[in-house]
Parts: sequence; structure tokens; C-alpha cells
Amino acid sequence: MRRINLNADMGESFGAYTIGDDEALLSVVQTASIACGFHGGDPSVMAATILAAKDKGVSIGAHPGFDDLWGFGRRQIRMRASDLEKMVLYQIAAIDGMARALGHPITHVKAHGALNNMACEDAAYADAIASAVKAFNPALIFVAVALSELARAGERAGLPTALEGFADRSYRADGMLTPRSEPGAMITDAQQSLDQVFSMALDGKIPVSGGGTIETPIHTVCHHGDEPTAVALASKVRQGIEQSDALALAVLPEIDLGA
Amino acid sequence: MRRINLNADMGESFGAYTIGDDEALLSVVQTASIACGFHGGDPSVMAATILAAKDKGVSIGAHPGFDDLWGFGRRQIRMRASDLEKMVLYQIAAIDGMARALGHPITHVKAHGALNNMACEDAAYADAIASAVKAFNPALIFVAVALSELARAGERAGLPTALEGFADRSYRADGMLTPRSEPGAMITDAQQSLDQVFSMALDGKIPVSGGGTIETPIHTVCHHGDEPTAVALASKVRQGIEQSDALALAVLPEIDLGA
Amino acid sequence: MRRINLNADMGESFGAYTIGDDEALLSVVQTASIACGFHGGDPSVMAATILAAKDKGVSIGAHPGFDDLWGFGRRQIRMRASDLEKMVLYQIAAIDGMARALGHPITHVKAHGALNNMACEDAAYADAIASAVKAFNPALIFVAVALSELARAGERAGLPTALEGFADRSYRADGMLTPRSEPGAMITDAQQSLDQVFSMALDGKIPVSGGGTIETPIHTVCHHGDEPTAVALASKVRQGIEQSDALALAVLPEIDLGA
Amino acid sequence: MRRINLNADMGESFGAYTIGDDEALLSVVQTASIACGFHGGDPSVMAATILAAKDKGVSIGAHPGFDDLWGFGRRQIRMRASDLEKMVLYQIAAIDGMARALGHPITHVKAHGALNNMACEDAAYADAIASAVKAFNPALIFVAVALSELARAGERAGLPTALEGFADRSYRADGMLTPRSEPGAMITDAQQSLDQVFSMALDGKIPVSGGGTIETPIHTVCHHGDEPTAVALASKVRQGIEQSDALALAVLPEIDLGA
Repeated sequence: MRRINLNADMGESFGAYTIGDDEALLSVVQTASIACGFHGGDPSVMAATILAAKDKGVSIGAHPGFDDLWGFGRRQIRMRASDLEKMVLYQIAAIDGMARALGHPITHVKAHGALNNMACEDAAYADAIASAVKAFNPALIFVAVALSELARAGERAGLPTALEGFADRSYRADGMLTPRSEPGAMITDAQQSLDQVFSMALDGKIPVSGGGTIETPIHTVCHHGDEPTAVALASKVRQGIEQSDALALAVLPEIDLGA
Repeated sequence: MRRINLNADMGESFGAYTIGDDEALLSVVQTASIACGFHGGDPSVMAATILAAKDKGVSIGAHPGFDDLWGFGRRQIRMRASDLEKMVLYQIAAIDGMARALGHPITHVKAHGALNNMACEDAAYADAIASAVKAFNPALIFVAVALSELARAGERAGLPTALEGFADRSYRADGMLTPRSEPGAMITDAQQSLDQVFSMALDGKIPVSGGGTIETPIHTVCHHGDEPTAVALASKVRQGIEQSDALALAVLPEIDLGA
Repeated sequence: MRRINLNADMGESFGAYTIGDDEALLSVVQTASIACGFHGGDPSVMAATILAAKDKGVSIGAHPGFDDLWGFGRRQIRMRASDLEKMVLYQIAAIDGMARALGHPITHVKAHGALNNMACEDAAYADAIASAVKAFNPALIFVAVALSELARAGERAGLPTALEGFADRSYRADGMLTPRSEPGAMITDAQQSLDQVFSMALDGKIPVSGGGTIETPIHTVCHHGDEPTAVALASKVRQGIEQSDALALAVLPEIDLGA
Repeated sequence: MRRINLNADMGESFGAYTIGDDEALLSVVQTASIACGFHGGDPSVMAATILAAKDKGVSIGAHPGFDDLWGFGRRQIRMRASDLEKMVLYQIAAIDGMARALGHPITHVKAHGALNNMACEDAAYADAIASAVKAFNPALIFVAVALSELARAGERAGLPTALEGFADRSYRADGMLTPRSEPGAMITDAQQSLDQVFSMALDGKIPVSGGGTIETPIHTVCHHGDEPTAVALASKVRQGIEQSDALALAVLPEIDLGA
């Protein structure tokens, strides 16, 4: 049986403000990326999310983002790569120390929002993030969108790199996601979503809009949980995998990244 | 020879804003408490300060404060002790992880500004800070103003507690500092300052305004560096200790906290 | 017919974070206090809330709070009164200018959360807020909890002061609210709530726990909308007033503050 | 005599952090752009700066920037134009209201740092800023770098637009500033700086690196005050103008923007 991992972002509430359905997602995914207080999350939310994930046996990682609470880390910010590296290092350190103190150490790092998007295209940003991870702990799994600059940066840095695919988005022939502004960008049909996950996880092939596939290993599948139907779709993907004889769900550290 | 430690707060600059004369202080003290990004400091400033301290052989620690950049951590904030504990844990974790990545691990924790002042009088605040330190790493030295609730909290938690005295402030008979609003609060005479340090460090006695002394061990002496003459005064205190046959300067981990 | 005003706090969402049921409250109250970006609210939320209130004919005011997004303005912060005055002036100015640009000028100011609570007991805080209002526009209505230092400060400053009572909280004999930790603090019965409003608005008497009343004019009644049942209770209070021959609902500028 | 205006940015200190030499600049320039609390400045700094400018007879304006204290407003942030417009409107409103309360109303708006730079090239950003100014008060002078998208946006919006030139930077043939990375970007010679100001102010011609000129009216000349020698250079430019029979210094509202 081949192993696949489902991941989601969590712990993005802040003070009196609640966002996301972390409880529901914790029953779907095996791995959570937890906000570190810059784009979302606060120390109390972080602690509570770490403990909730520990309780569910969900592996956790740092989810560093821009220092942009107003924009929820979704605004692109141009900064010096040296500052970016320190900003990411700070966030990884903060959650790693909290997680160790709470008895559930982090095992991966995945960048958030606009930082993730920029690093997928900008090698300097990608290298800054990878460099922060390597400086902190080169054994941490580096989660990177497949076929991106971020994935290449993880490999350049010699980090164990988990390539990420999407279950609820269609792909273009160049390996990029179909922009949300175009028809068919979002996959809302559970069977289509499941087919895409099986193709990615079993065959290492991402279906492409208009036909054909792109070859790349996929180690983890992202669930955003932003849209109202997202958790329901993710649940069906999880059920489909659980009922299969070919795929098994696993926390990120149990995924074979060599494959 | 009895060992004594001089400490100062550092790394409180932020982005384009510079504050404090860290370079001068690094030549005076053996131990630096580094701001963690909440009341001052940013990831890049933190990294630069850690490296500068490493370069000078100055031992470092976390200097957590309130999430209050505008007030520079000097405004009293009333918050739940459970949130306070997480807020302190977050800051310790952030700088500890950065410092380990940069090859100069922290060895102590000292609260900043209004947080420190409140915790000196409020057992719940003091326990929250001590609890965060203990949860993170019970081997970290807990720096606490002598005779304060903070000192008692460190002992309650079983933490190695370094008691702190002041070289540039006079004391009242109850062991509290003379308020700045009263005459004689600030010690500006180098010889008087040196005498106070020797009395504290050698005899375990703090001179009291109006005569008499209070008995308490003192393991580390604080230099604020805020006022224009502070670094000059601190330099003279250092010289006085260096020329003495009775006292020797040492980084905090080399101080005998049993004494 | 005697006029009474119902008010609520609004516009406290921030970026991707949504809080409060502003839409429902806009159908209940005649007056909204809008957060100004310090404890909640952001420029886009403020603009949208101003326009929504304008659309409903709801009068608006500034709702300044501490610069404390994490604590949602509910943490007590000790600061210099001179800084506090400027901080409140800034927030009033910000929303006033936006509201004029959007064609729905503010007509009152009401402090938020911990700032409001502290100013109810601390004359220096109360005067700082009143002073900011007076410096900005002495014709603005100053909303102050009845019998508080804030109310006295409004009168000292010569501001038109609207005294505020609560429909969902019981009072002690000293005029203070029964602490939430005590039984009977919250009024959840619609008829009891309505009786209290009528007593306050018609007779100028607040019923007191254990019997008796306190005499004070009440010009506006606050609805928090925090608790799940709050909007439902507020709706019943509104209906009760609408069905009465003695009381009429009015926006704040139409209330007779001399009474 | 033809009138020309010298402007500088001020009030960018924050809390315990001091930046810039506002006092010196107030003796050089006739017009100050005051930070509004987002990239720098705080309510108390704003009030003090408004009063200092009033005292010196220096006209003032809003200097809105990105919500980016760490980056001092120098990091490019990509945001929705609708949010940008509200963000600028908020900042203009905040300082305008404070300035009116303090008896020295603002007369212009000039964007700061990366926001200014982005708006010089991006019509959507430029229009968002111009739109905020127009919505707030269409009589406010819109300060825009000559030959930029910002200048065109000011004209599109029908705002009185003051075109800005630089005394300490050289220009390329396309009207853009020579990048700081290239030799000759900074003008440090007082006579060269003065010649450039006279050419811009008297002849409407900006000298170009390598020879030639570009024709454009220039109504105001910017002094950054960032570099150590900047205030000295600016003082010499001021003296040169004061000694001339052809040019006279004036506050921004006294400049003929038709010219």
C-alpha cells in the first residue's frame, strides 16, 4: 500500500477572532500546519492547536507567513531576503519551542499564503525559507508545492522535501494551478477530486485541464477549508482513500519522500 | 574570589528605529537579555544581537515583554495569567530557537519593563512567567529582582534563580527601590555605585537610604543604559570590580546561585 | 412620548476575521458605536459599517479603544493620560473624517471595553477622553455610563452627555453592575429587561438587586450583542418599546439630554 | 519672483523610538508631510509634530504609508485598490482631525515610501490614493512626483496637483531617478544641487544625466533628511534660494500650481 498524507492549515484564529473549522479538519487530515502569530494565530491559540493536534494524533508543522494580520498573510510583501530568512526562522523557533514544551514536536514547515505563492515563483524567497529551515533543523520536512521554485529550493538545501498537490484545484499544462478567475479552476465534485488524488498519489501524474498529465511525485495533499463545502469535500476524499486497497493515510513523517 | 555578573538589556531596536547603545554595553556586561519582538526587537535585530553577543563572549537570555511596541513594554497590561504564560513561552521559544541556530544558546530569562515590575508584586504574574520558563527548559536561569514576588516564584518553581540588584538606584528600608520621583533615587556617583555593588556581591547586604542594610544574596547587577551617563557609570563599576581582589566578573552560568 | 435610544457596538471585524452580528443589530438599535482600528475594525470594515448604518438610518459614533487587537481592547492598559488623550483624538478624527467623506457624519463618542471600564472609575482617564472629544468637536455627544467618573468628566468638560444604562445587567445598590461572577448578574428574561428599560427611561430610576432604586436619568440603553441570546433579547426590548404609548425610539441626536 | 516650496517628511518617530532630525528640517523647509501612524508616527508624535510645525509657520500635510512599522513603509505591499483607498482615507482623516483640533489644518497629502513608489508606476494605486484625497477634501493639494502615474492620477481626479522634484538625486533621460545603485545617483555637491533646483523651479527643466533636460513644471522640492549630510545640503539649497532675486520660498498653499 502506498502512503499519502492529507494536510490543512490551522490555528489561524487571533484573540477574540475565530477563523476556520479546526475541529472538523482535525478529523480529516493527518497533518496540520499551524500559524505562528504573524499572519494569524496568537500564543494561546497556538498552544491550544498544538494540544488539539496532539490529542488527535495529527502531526504538526510551522506555518510561517508575512507579518500581516490585516491581510491575513495574503498580501504580497517585498522584503530583503535576509530579513525574510530571519522572519521565518523566528516563527519556526517560536512554534517549535512551544510544541516541544507541550510534548508534541513539529515535524515540518510549510509557508503560508502570499509568502508561499511568492516563493513558488521567486528563487530568492524560496531559498530564504529553505535556508531558515536548514539553519534551524535540517531534519524538518520541507513542504513545497510540486514543480515550484520552493520545491527546487528544498532540494538545493538538501532538506527532506514533501511535494504538495491539490485535491480541489485543476492544473494547467505548465503545472500551475488554473487561476480562480477561470472556469473549472475549483474542483467541487467528490469523485473528480478523488480521481485526481489517486492519480497523483499512485501514479505520480497530475491530470491537466484539456487532457494529459504532468509527472511529479506527490507526497501530501492540501485541504484549504476556506470555502463552506471544503470540509465536506475533504471528508469524502479521506473516505475514498480509507476504502481503497491501494492507498493508506499517514502522518507526514511516515511518508516515503524518496518516492 | 567571589563572582558577580553584570547584565544589561539589548536588541531593542526595531526595523528602521535604533535604540540603546548595545555596542558599548557589550563591552561592559557579561550577560545580555535580548528583546524578543514584542516590546522591541525584530527577527533581524535579534539575530544580529545574538551574533554580536556571541562574538564578545557575552552570555544571553530571553527578555520577554508585553506585546506593546508603542509603549516599549513599559505600560502595565492586565491579562489572564494563562495568556501571559503562553505569551512568555512564545517569546522564549522564538529567541531560544534563533540562538541555537546561530550557535549561541540562551542560558537565562529575564522579564522586561512593566511585565517585570508587575511580576515583582503580583504572584500570579510571577508564577505565570516562572511556569513558562519551567515548561520550556527548567535548566534556564531565572533572573529575578531580589526580595520580589518574582524571586519567590522562581524558587517555588524550582528554577535556578539569579537574584538581581541595582548599581544605579538606591533602596528603601522595605527592599523596594526608591521611586524615581524622590531625591536620591538615582545613584550617579561612581564610588557610591561601586560601594553598593561590593556590599551586595561580597556581603549580601544592600545599603538602605537613611542607613542600615537588607540582607539578600545578589548574583547579578543590572545596568539599564537608558540614561546618557549610564554606560559611563557602568564602565566604572566594571573597572572597579576588575581592579579588586575580592570580586571577579563572570557570565551568568558561571555564577554560584547557591550563595 | 418620552424618547429613548438603543445603542450597540459594531464594526469590530478585522481583515479576514469577522466578529459580531452587525446586520442583526442594525435592525434593532438606532445608534451604533463603530470601532476605529485600534481594538478592532480596519479602514475597510469601518467604511462598510458607516455605509450600512447610513443605509439603515442608524446614527453613528466613534468607539475608541486601546491599541490592543490581541486583547480586543479588553485588557486594562496603564498609560500616560496625555498619550491616552492623543490616542482617543486620533481615533475620533479617523472615523469622523471617513464618515464625513461617506456622507454620514458621527454624532457621538463612546469608549470601548477596558478603556471604558477604567474611565468609569479613574477620573484622569475619564478627563483625558472627555478632553479629546472637546478638543475635536464640543458638539459631539459624550456617551457615558450613568453614575460613573466618565459621566462626571463629560459634565466637567461641558459636553452634551448621554447617560447609559443596561437592559441585560442587574445593578447593585451602589449603582455599579452586579459582577458577572455573581448570580443574577445577567438579565435573560425579556419582561424583566423591558421593565428595567421602562423604569430607567420613564421614571429615571434603576431597579437595584434586593429591592429599591437609584435615581439617574438614562438617555441610551446598551446592547452588547456578545452572547448568543443577546440579539433576541434586544429585539424584544425594541418591540416592547415600539408597542408602548409612553416611550419612543430615537437616534441619539434626537434624545433630550436635559432630561 | 517665482515661488518654490521645500518639503520634507517628519513625525516618523514612534513611542520610545526616535528617527529623523525634525527640528533641523523645520528650519529648512516650508512644508512638512507628517506620518499618520501606519509606517511611523503615533498619536503623541503626530500632535507634537503638528504643533512644532505650527510654531514655525510650516504648512503640513498627511503622509500616509503602508501599515508596516517594521519595514518603515518601505516594503512594497500588494493589496486591493479598494482597501488601499480606505487605508489612505483613514490616515488622512486621522491627521486632518488632529491638526484641526490643534489649530493648524493640513493643506496637502503626499504618499510615503513604497506606497509612493508603487503609485508612481501603477495607475490603480495612484488612482486609489487620488480617490481617497478627493473623497475627503478635493481642495487638498496632491503632491506627486513629476512625470509619474501619481501626477497623472491627480490630474485625472481634478485635484490641485503639486509636482515634486528632487534636489539631491540625478535624473535619467526618461524622467526617472537614477537608481541609487548607479554612480552619480546622489547629488552631494551643494552648487550642483542648487543649479538643479533653479533649473527646475525657474525654467521648468530637469537636467538629465549625460546632458539635456526634461520639461516639466516643478512646484515643490523634496528633502529626505535620511542621510547624515542631507540637512546640511538642504540648508545650502535654502540659503541659495534666499539669496536669489529670482526665486522665493513659500508654503505649499502659496505656490502657483497653474505654472
